[in-house]
Amino acid sequence: MTGGTPDDGLQVLPVRGIGDVVAGDDLARLIVTAAPWITDGDVLVVTSKIVSKAEGRLVEVPADGPERDEARQRVLDGETARVVARRGPTSIVQTHHGFVMAAAGIDASNVDKTHLVLLPEDPDASARRLRADLLARGLDVVIVISDTMGRAWRNGLTDVALGAAGIEALLDHRGQVDPYGNELSLTQMAVVDELAAAAELVKGKCDRVPVAVVRGHPRSGEGSGAAVLIRDAESDMFSLGTAEARAAGLRAAAVLPDSPPAAAVPPDSPPAAPVSAVPTVDPAVVARALQTLDGLRQSDVQLTDGIRLTPARGGAAALIRTGADAHRLRAALAAEGIETTAVIDDEGVTLTYGVSA
Amino acid sequence: MTGGTPDDGLQVLPVRGIGDVVAGDDLARLIVTAAPWITDGDVLVVTSKIVSKAEGRLVEVPADGPERDEARQRVLDGETARVVARRGPTSIVQTHHGFVMAAAGIDASNVDKTHLVLLPEDPDASARRLRADLLARGLDVVIVISDTMGRAWRNGLTDVALGAAGIEALLDHRGQVDPYGNELSLTQMAVVDELAAAAELVKGKCDRVPVAVVRGHPRSGEGSGAAVLIRDAESDMFSLGTAEARAAGLRAAAVLPDSPPAAAVPPDSPPAAPVSAVPTVDPAVVARALQTLDGLRQSDVQLTDGIRLTPARGGAAALIRTGADAHRLRAALAAEGIETTAVIDDEGVTLTYGVSA
Repeated sequence: MTGGTPDDGLQVLPVRGIGDVVAGDDLARLIVTAAPWITDGDVLVVTSKIVSKAEGRLVEVPADGPERDEARQRVLDGETARVVARRGPTSIVQTHHGFVMAAAGIDASNVDKTHLVLLPEDPDASARRLRADLLARGLDVVIVISDTMGRAWRNGLTDVALGAAGIEALLDHRGQVDPYGNELSLTQMAVVDELAAAAELVKGKCDRVPVAVVRGHPRSGEGSGAAVLIRDAESDMFSLGTAEARAAGLRAAAVLPDSPPAAAVPPDSPPAAPVSAVPTVDPAVVARALQTLDGLRQSDVQLTDGIRLTPARGGAAALIRTGADAHRLRAALAAEGIETTAVIDDEGVTLTYGVSA
Repeated sequence: MTGGTPDDGLQVLPVRGIGDVVAGDDLARLIVTAAPWITDGDVLVVTSKIVSKAEGRLVEVPADGPERDEARQRVLDGETARVVARRGPTSIVQTHHGFVMAAAGIDASNVDKTHLVLLPEDPDASARRLRADLLARGLDVVIVISDTMGRAWRNGLTDVALGAAGIEALLDHRGQVDPYGNELSLTQMAVVDELAAAAELVKGKCDRVPVAVVRGHPRSGEGSGAAVLIRDAESDMFSLGTAEARAAGLRAAAVLPDSPPAAAVPPDSPPAAPVSAVPTVDPAVVARALQTLDGLRQSDVQLTDGIRLTPARGGAAALIRTGADAHRLRAALAAEGIETTAVIDDEGVTLTYGVSA
């Protein structure tokens, strides 16, 4: 069919007429009533807002005034597992689910002024339930529960998946070989996020189209839910805001311990093996740390197995300066990943490179 | 048409048969030859890789060995405006365009082993050029140039827009009112990113479908290009990796200046107005900073207009300790956003709350 459009594309279709959703509503019924044309294999992308409403995830708050702000803050605190970054009135937090979102995804739009809408408690479970409810009606479809999120580094929001059922959230290209024989590495596509984004293109922001259908997407097994998209803070290179992480560094500099923390030794354990007291430290890195202090340092520095600082001149003030210098240097070394312990005597300070027990 | 599918949805259609693209190729010709069914109003989402190839954005590198790694690093350095985060072999950098991407978007896949593919030099300009070339062939289409990117906080990659022409990159819902009378704030959707994501769903990772067409998306003016999606580092709460920002905090602690930087005074300027020497500082915040040092501090602390530290006991070592304590406290205060200057005398250290010139 030269010139014809390919027949293996996707369609993205809005579902209209679902109307207002209230607690206890049967979403499966509402959806098939509004869109009797939905068919097996379709991907239903459902805005989390209507899932939350059907599940009664609403909190009553005062309509205005400082009482509203206070109530809102309490609700936010309740939804927050940890604060990731704050600037002015904006809080980016990690929710108990693990999502990193502004204001924990709490929404005051598309709801009357005396309520806030929380995210579904377990969006993957919600997706599985809705999929089961539709299966019970004879429809075998994929469910993606979506919400709008901001991102680092890029302006503008996009819709992503909070929950999924009936689909693999990640499509793994790793191990595939391109036409040139290069193995594709690092290529796991967040397919359910892309489905959520595609669906948003036909949705409005005013709740009139809370569901869109993506038709023509290949099936990929029962799937593990969208929770696999959550990167744990441990392996995330951006687990804290820049200002927060910088402040954490300053705070760490304030509390650098003089001696290594005493290892907790259970009463009946055998004597600990001696630890290597002088870890190998790159002299170039030490030189770099010293260099950052050029013009600030006022003590003499001698490099031994560790570092020895002594006052550059006589007098009490010079001794105090050496104390400050030693701490400056410890912070500079810590910035390079080098831990130190400090022993202070009447002539100066000896820094020993970090011993981790 | 009860039961019929809505006729205002989108179609996402793969363009096959474009084949290998080489420097100097006329992309407009290749695309309309492969997909003569493309029509006015279609959105063409073009993988940046083929734009780069057509523009000759290739660099020759050795096929293997340490020479390849070195050459690759040199190319990466050339494409990097600043390093955002590094962990093991992974570098997240900001490119000269402003994109924050792993390895500056340099790609070794879908190209023979002796070349690397760089991003287009100016993806918005590339998009405008391709749009003009197609207009010259009588086709009025939207161009989105896409690439695959990772994100903070979420596993898996998605396609986003590097360049755009003929479309507004951001769709602004701000000022709209939902059915409950709430004004929608903060809602600017990154439409071109969502178009790129939708297109990726019908593309492969092996260059066989480097273009997809989104049909049915409403037109939105000539547009300002995808560069508006780049958030400048200044206003980005995640402009640095957590480890890098924490190290920056430690480094800042190392180099806290004792006196405020001397203001550069042009020779003929009138005498500077006296600056307020004692900014208002919240005593609770100072107390918090002191508290972090519980068990570490070994000097006496007196709160005055600033802070006075003196040795808790006699002897030279105690003086050195007071120097270290003063610097600890300055770092703890800096973590709370309080700058200090330090004056050291023979009895102790006086910290004065930050004077910014």
